[in-house]
Amino acid sequence: MYRTNTCGELRTEHIGKTVTLAGWVQRVRNLGNLIFIDLRDRYGITQLFFDSNSPLAEKAKSLGREFVIAATGIVNERASKNAQMPTGDIEIKVEKLDVLNESKLPPFTIEDETDGGDDIRMKYRYLDLRRNVIKENLLKRHQVARAVREYMDAQGFADVETPVLIKSTPEGARDFVVPSRLSPGNFYALPQSPQTFKQLLMVAGFDKYYQIVRCFRDEDLRADRQPEFTQIDCEMSFVEQEDVLQMFEGMVKYVFKKVRGLDLGDFPRMSYADCLKYYGNDKPDLRFEMKLQEIKEVVSGKNFKVFDDAEAVIAIVAEGCSEYTRKQTDELTEWVKRPQIGAGGLVFIKCNTDGTFKSSVDKFYSADDLKKIAEYCKAKSGDLILILSGPLAKTRKAMSELRLELGNRLGLRNANEFKPLWVLDFPLLEWDEEEKRFNAMHHPFTSWKNEDDELLQSNPGAVRANAYDVVINGVELSSGSIRIHNREKQEKMFSLLGLTPEEANFKFGFILNAFEYGAPPHGGIAFGFDRFCSIVISNLDYIRDFIAFPKNNAGRDMMLDAPSDIDSKLKKDLGLS
Amino acid sequence: MYRTNTCGELRTEHIGKTVTLAGWVQRVRNLGNLIFIDLRDRYGITQLFFDSNSPLAEKAKSLGREFVIAATGIVNERASKNAQMPTGDIEIKVEKLDVLNESKLPPFTIEDETDGGDDIRMKYRYLDLRRNVIKENLLKRHQVARAVREYMDAQGFADVETPVLIKSTPEGARDFVVPSRLSPGNFYALPQSPQTFKQLLMVAGFDKYYQIVRCFRDEDLRADRQPEFTQIDCEMSFVEQEDVLQMFEGMVKYVFKKVRGLDLGDFPRMSYADCLKYYGNDKPDLRFEMKLQEIKEVVSGKNFKVFDDAEAVIAIVAEGCSEYTRKQTDELTEWVKRPQIGAGGLVFIKCNTDGTFKSSVDKFYSADDLKKIAEYCKAKSGDLILILSGPLAKTRKAMSELRLELGNRLGLRNANEFKPLWVLDFPLLEWDEEEKRFNAMHHPFTSWKNEDDELLQSNPGAVRANAYDVVINGVELSSGSIRIHNREKQEKMFSLLGLTPEEANFKFGFILNAFEYGAPPHGGIAFGFDRFCSIVISNLDYIRDFIAFPKNNAGRDMMLDAPSDIDSKLKKDLGLS
Repeated sequence: MYRTNTCGELRTEHIGKTVTLAGWVQRVRNLGNLIFIDLRDRYGITQLFFDSNSPLAEKAKSLGREFVIAATGIVNERASKNAQMPTGDIEIKVEKLDVLNESKLPPFTIEDETDGGDDIRMKYRYLDLRRNVIKENLLKRHQVARAVREYMDAQGFADVETPVLIKSTPEGARDFVVPSRLSPGNFYALPQSPQTFKQLLMVAGFDKYYQIVRCFRDEDLRADRQPEFTQIDCEMSFVEQEDVLQMFEGMVKYVFKKVRGLDLGDFPRMSYADCLKYYGNDKPDLRFEMKLQEIKEVVSGKNFKVFDDAEAVIAIVAEGCSEYTRKQTDELTEWVKRPQIGAGGLVFIKCNTDGTFKSSVDKFYSADDLKKIAEYCKAKSGDLILILSGPLAKTRKAMSELRLELGNRLGLRNANEFKPLWVLDFPLLEWDEEEKRFNAMHHPFTSWKNEDDELLQSNPGAVRANAYDVVINGVELSSGSIRIHNREKQEKMFSLLGLTPEEANFKFGFILNAFEYGAPPHGGIAFGFDRFCSIVISNLDYIRDFIAFPKNNAGRDMMLDAPSDIDSKLKKDLGLS
Repeated sequence: MYRTNTCGELRTEHIGKTVTLAGWVQRVRNLGNLIFIDLRDRYGITQLFFDSNSPLAEKAKSLGREFVIAATGIVNERASKNAQMPTGDIEIKVEKLDVLNESKLPPFTIEDETDGGDDIRMKYRYLDLRRNVIKENLLKRHQVARAVREYMDAQGFADVETPVLIKSTPEGARDFVVPSRLSPGNFYALPQSPQTFKQLLMVAGFDKYYQIVRCFRDEDLRADRQPEFTQIDCEMSFVEQEDVLQMFEGMVKYVFKKVRGLDLGDFPRMSYADCLKYYGNDKPDLRFEMKLQEIKEVVSGKNFKVFDDAEAVIAIVAEGCSEYTRKQTDELTEWVKRPQIGAGGLVFIKCNTDGTFKSSVDKFYSADDLKKIAEYCKAKSGDLILILSGPLAKTRKAMSELRLELGNRLGLRNANEFKPLWVLDFPLLEWDEEEKRFNAMHHPFTSWKNEDDELLQSNPGAVRANAYDVVINGVELSSGSIRIHNREKQEKMFSLLGLTPEEANFKFGFILNAFEYGAPPHGGIAFGFDRFCSIVISNLDYIRDFIAFPKNNAGRDMMLDAPSDIDSKLKKDLGLS
């Protein structure tokens, strides 16, 4: 061992002891008669010092940032203590100094606030990972994983590993594939999730399964997606929806308590339909109210064609914002007209503190009309009403974005507050305009509500699934459902999704067969673990800072420079040349 | 929830309670006036019973094996208790019976000793996994993983996830590759191990890292290899070899204690050279002695050309086997002549209990000669000496096989005994006869002993690595080393392995660069987790029964029927058609 202690553990009780520390030079301060070095390792920073007349002084002065050294000396009490540092009461008077490795000048500073841009940080990720903020994220990620395992183990779940080299699946268009050398022309696929395996484990009688497992999805990458990601994957047998909700609400609570010391309280529940109605999307941020209000009824018939012709007129009330300037409202109008939001315009009604009203559509609405609208919306004096109109779905979506934007601007999205929610009763199917057929909203193994059985033929889009999501602060953390466990129902589902019996059999024969050998009722859930960590640890939805070696938005590993060309012999062996 | 209790938990204290159980029908016994059903779930078996005049009797009789049912009834004390079963004191008098799912007749019996062959078991793995023996293997595998994590967590190791989509590596010929859709013509590779990442984590200052992680190797499969396998991957900074040995000896001991209640004791250590000398291979089974003895010196000069001309003459002594019949010795001779062993013949010396000797080469050796040989070998009367001769390496290998075979035949390889060993001082390089160059024996990141520095030029094959393996009962469980942490040394190593600076840079530029920014001294180890489980749980070296969904010897998943053809559109998108 190159050291007797770490750089985070020495305290006044160690004064007088001879110790050896090893680590990285964070900083060298040469005060003329004294030289100080901050020595850093994973556990902390300890101050070393040298008299200028020490034979080691020259060597100490020559050390550069990030040199790796081992220093032996006596623990001294500091003359001026530093209460900010856990080791701030002591310092080491160095008597022996070894340079274990040198370092070139790093391309960016190894500090919490670095001067490195994204690209350079990713290329030198091993240096970026030295920064305290990133290092702590990853160490806490381990804590989150431990808390998850503690809970799941205590609840009797079996951690079973499922294969990574599998068979291409239904959403096969997004599969990564692996050419087989032993079976030329054939391919393995990498799993988008272990969905079918966990169901087979239920058929096998494992009763309760979980796994923290890598999954893969070859998407056109968006800002915060990764081609490989980690999932907390869970399944239970002989359960109904309520059992699953209780079990995993317990898990989320346990993790927050353990990692953040926070009691989340019981999770409220809301139907998918209500989420859309009141928040415009299926993952509402409940840290602030500002609910969407459908006001078509009260604004119609005043010859304002925009509202009269619209399928939906939706308002939100921004509390205390009646004094917004023209500049501010113009800017918000521009904001909703951006192509990402796509609204045609934005109508304002200011509920002035003097009891009067002022709107951008005064031409069509009398003071009395405006008062009625304000009353309908439960706006108080001092509030600002913002109104969008148009097709229902599109208007809800735009209003949802506007609501979140206002939440940000008004500081209503508190970084220390967590508002969990169960979203329930998702639709089973969603219409794919391009392919002119239904897709599974969750996945094709999701069961539907018995009471909606007849709708399956008459109005498939209205069938509700036994599906549920955990949402926290507007971020979808998980997605789960009670599964189909019966061959006929599963076949019916595949046929609704446009698979021929032959296709269904080629891709899913194994699970259709399995359902004929005593499949128990079962259901489960999967949490996006990267995102879960991001929320639990930082209350941010930015996963890249919680992954040790992430890929960029183009799916490239900038450090490895991968993907890349491969050996030509290998290519030939695989029939790829 | 479909049940109030599991099939493993009811005892006499529950008598009189009304319960609902759910599970699989293991067996229906119709005794005329009474019908018994053994109901099975993951946790055990509970006996249900029905009076023949119960309205449920007909339904009960109609149940087939593996039907999934839920049964509600009252816990009764059994008339005749079954002490073999944890629930054997009670039974359930059923009052309500629901069939949750039917089952076709399984293609093999769901019993510990099944009538299913390998192929059919793999095809219906979800049924095979219902068998108690396989289920218990996997549940215990989870216990092993938990024990590993407990130890590593307590020792301050950080569990950090490393990527699966990486860049093709040096042993690239065995890489699985993944074509990139976003970067046509380029490929990711799947990791054969996270070796370079864990080293980068040391450069990043993570100090102690571990991960239970999936790895991939596209080999021509042998009987007990899998294209994907799991590794306990570990690395530490600021350590020397002794630190790593202590840490991981502790880990193995902890797991054996926790999972099997067994104290392994301190591990003996042996050099690679001594392993070969005394056991003929680098993973000796120490459950029995029967050391190899080089006896060329004492058998030479007696005009027996076979021995006189041989590079090596090696003997082992089989205790108490002097009375082996001609049939037995002939059979052993045939055994060593098989192509897998490849010996030319086998010489015997029987040390008879009456003090005389009898050998298959009496023509060349007098009674006195034989006595001298026996004394040299420390054979006692009643023992049998077996001798092979030929080139040293080949003869050692053959003798090693013969030793193990005799160990099996003589019952010396006790299934309840564990003999761990550290093997040390491996050669750094091994000569590749085909490619006419050196390969790294461990991997190209392994450091060598300072004292062998000069041999690097003069006799590279003699250089000893700072490498170490844990072997238990003849099975290699792990492989580790102190790594190179210096760019120049790493470049020297690559050049010894025949990589040009350009190749080294293309493949490993990132780690060569990393070594210039303050890489600490570091070392680590990786355990084959599947094999580790197989040994800890069953003291067998047969990994397939410890993997939930294994592939067969041709790398196929018989259940999924993968690898397979993929969607033609997907192929086109990937430029593969």
